Amino acid sequence: MRAMKGAFYQGKKRLSVEEIAPQPPGPGQVRITVAYSGVCGTDFHAYLGHMDQRIKPPQVIGHEMSGTIAEIGEGVVGFKVGDKVVVRPLDPCLKCPACRRGYSHICYHLNFMGVDSPGCFQSSWTVPAHTLHRLPDDIDLKEAALIEPTAVAAHDVRLGQVSEKDNVVVLGAGPIGTLVALLGQNKGARVLVAEINQFRIKLAREIGLEVVNPLEIDLAEYVAEWTNAAGADIVFEVTGAEANAEMMARLPRARGRIVVVGIFAEPAKVDLRRVFLRELQIQGVRVYQPEDFETAISLVAAKALPTNHLISDIRPLEQIQATFEEIERGADFMKVLLKCSK
Amino acid sequence: MRAMKGAFYQGKKRLSVEEIAPQPPGPGQVRITVAYSGVCGTDFHAYLGHMDQRIKPPQVIGHEMSGTIAEIGEGVVGFKVGDKVVVRPLDPCLKCPACRRGYSHICYHLNFMGVDSPGCFQSSWTVPAHTLHRLPDDIDLKEAALIEPTAVAAHDVRLGQVSEKDNVVVLGAGPIGTLVALLGQNKGARVLVAEINQFRIKLAREIGLEVVNPLEIDLAEYVAEWTNAAGADIVFEVTGAEANAEMMARLPRARGRIVVVGIFAEPAKVDLRRVFLRELQIQGVRVYQPEDFETAISLVAAKALPTNHLISDIRPLEQIQATFEEIERGADFMKVLLKCSK
Repeated sequence: MRAMKGAFYQGKKRLSVEEIAPQPPGPGQVRITVAYSGVCGTDFHAYLGHMDQRIKPPQVIGHEMSGTIAEIGEGVVGFKVGDKVVVRPLDPCLKCPACRRGYSHICYHLNFMGVDSPGCFQSSWTVPAHTLHRLPDDIDLKEAALIEPTAVAAHDVRLGQVSEKDNVVVLGAGPIGTLVALLGQNKGARVLVAEINQFRIKLAREIGLEVVNPLEIDLAEYVAEWTNAAGADIVFEVTGAEANAEMMARLPRARGRIVVVGIFAEPAKVDLRRVFLRELQIQGVRVYQPEDFETAISLVAAKALPTNHLISDIRPLEQIQATFEEIERGADFMKVLLKCSK
Repeated sequence: MRAMKGAFYQGKKRLSVEEIAPQPPGPGQVRITVAYSGVCGTDFHAYLGHMDQRIKPPQVIGHEMSGTIAEIGEGVVGFKVGDKVVVRPLDPCLKCPACRRGYSHICYHLNFMGVDSPGCFQSSWTVPAHTLHRLPDDIDLKEAALIEPTAVAAHDVRLGQVSEKDNVVVLGAGPIGTLVALLGQNKGARVLVAEINQFRIKLAREIGLEVVNPLEIDLAEYVAEWTNAAGADIVFEVTGAEANAEMMARLPRARGRIVVVGIFAEPAKVDLRRVFLRELQIQGVRVYQPEDFETAISLVAAKALPTNHLISDIRPLEQIQATFEEIERGADFMKVLLKCSK
């Protein structure tokens, strides 16, 4: 067996890549040879030490990936060695009120794999079989590494109830905002993206999105004109930026909807008077449910999205520390993939 | 004809009651002899001068009432002199995007009668016939004066999708909060009211509501225990108080709903992280639609609500200035009615 390696969070801004022995799958588990892992904003937060209450060093982090099944534990049915798979990295308690109601993806005691337990920045990842989604044999495993963030966007667009002819505004064109915009277009909606970062604006335009820079225009006025004075049907807030918490309520039409995707570390000011005046609906959304992974797999497998254009670079796992340092310096990345095995 | 009178807003904290000639109904209008008018928080805001941008003195204010048709204008069908009626005091433009979409109650250019045009604090009110709802002949016109606020509560409970077995928390036990709680109970829900005012706490308990004082307990902890750790199904924010904008998101269960009834003059801090974590839905609600008036009429006519217990006093219209002065001094009123005609 080739040398296995893993990237361990060792404390604030320190990651080490070390050789590790593969963990044999226990009952109900499988061991996956990880092909590619994507670097997510959450991983960057972890790197910065913001999640030290949940991550106990040394711990392998990472939760976006693609791979193939290497080994199957006792009692696992429906999968075989060599199957291409992705992991839906949620391990819920199945006992709390959320789980009992059928919302195990927002379990009150959720184990988010790669944060609360070991993640995929390693050659070999051992996970519960219930987290697996099988991929078509002919899928490109590089593109498949983007299924997890695509599933986030699929969940957001589904709970946002986006449909044909909706005028949709997306605040923020990072990986998730861009995917939300693309999936909105895929649903037949007319989509406007608001972004201030020049690299992201350029990239979003290259893949055919309509983008405005709210530093250069009055966004509320622009959206009013763009919708012939009605207001947007649906607004996705995908920045977590304080200013957008206030802006988001100024954009929708009467009975329009705001989908809160961005994570706000602190309570933020919302224009509740506008929520009242226009009877707006604000919908919080978090991660994904199994059907969102299936939607994402279908879209990526069908090459319905410009997935390759979102991959900024592919690097060996050994370069993880350097990559996070580049991100910290403000590197122009959309999605960086780490190659985790041969 | 007896002397007609009207209460005119003359500027900040000044109301004058004067004799006025009744206004004959034009085409499509009716003239109503107003029996009783209720004093609403909005009227008090007007009295304080907070709505001077919309109210041009001298103007008759007021929008909660009951009465009988006195005179019918050209082209009005379906009503006759002597019919008991209430007015749904909304006169929409019927041209804006909200109206065209069927949400004329939140028209972008809404004429809210009693604010943007003359109101019901007068013996004789001339209004468009499309604003009328007929009452059963045997209804008590004192109780009927509470139909308008009851319609607000009916709208809130309808958009909040309250149903049997829901655990509902109502923040605030003023007239609207109390009615929301009562209508929630009427739907079969289990209702908890949070209120800090001793008079309102006492009154709410007298009419059978379960009430806690959040100054005496930790409300979030209490609601968690009250719902066996799940969280509330639906939370109604009916105070417009900054602290409750932040509190409201701490109370619902996974995928629970918050209904924003209270009016927040300024953007207020909302715990959007909690909205995200539990995939909460926030629904803004405003005034009412025709079906909410019909619901309110049915409930009041059937004496399904302790309406009489909510009427703190009935006074002649001439005492309007003194009444607002008492409210300003913090008088213990739930709902005061003004008798507008013999």
